[in-house]
Amino acid sequence: MSYFKHHVFFCCNQRGPGETCCNNHGASDLQTYAKERVAELKLKGPGKVRINKAGCLDRCDQGPVMVVYPEAVWYTYVDKSDIDEIIEEHLKNGRVVERLKV
Amino acid sequence: MSYFKHHVFFCCNQRGPGETCCNNHGASDLQTYAKERVAELKLKGPGKVRINKAGCLDRCDQGPVMVVYPEAVWYTYVDKSDIDEIIEEHLKNGRVVERLKV
Repeated sequence: MSYFKHHVFFCCNQRGPGETCCNNHGASDLQTYAKERVAELKLKGPGKVRINKAGCLDRCDQGPVMVVYPEAVWYTYVDKSDIDEIIEEHLKNGRVVERLKV
Repeated sequence: MSYFKHHVFFCCNQRGPGETCCNNHGASDLQTYAKERVAELKLKGPGKVRINKAGCLDRCDQGPVMVVYPEAVWYTYVDKSDIDEIIEEHLKNGRVVERLKV
């Protein structure tokens, strides 16, 4: 069994001005938001959910992106409501959010 | 199929002086080494291997740690020879390195 049931990595890479990168789309702030929400919902911990920052996940053109392992589902997102949907549907209820997949 | 065949995250968290953390065990330097070796061996890219840095993976007492997804295999390591073995055995040949598992 996986140490974390769902291990989420947000690409938080910051490139230079004018270059496409996840952090120019609010990745770090929304990673922090996701981490706090998962804690509030008591989904956090071994056997449950971990929300991490990561370096460049190399899918810049589709960013901002996150990936959920071990199921290897990639998402993009725009705002807190997208994050809320991913947390509620995928991380809590195990249902992939098809409309946000990349 | 997973976007990356093997997606590797090194915990590169840096805590304060005297606190246990992966980066005090050379995590960042060995992540850089792994990334360079994977590129040299032409294992890098979509459908192949990605080597990333991550924030705290929350297994500090067992650190330094990395995790390989989607197979969800966790490793510790001491030096470049451990990294070389993980690259050769696991990332190239698909065989888990049992002696380094955590």
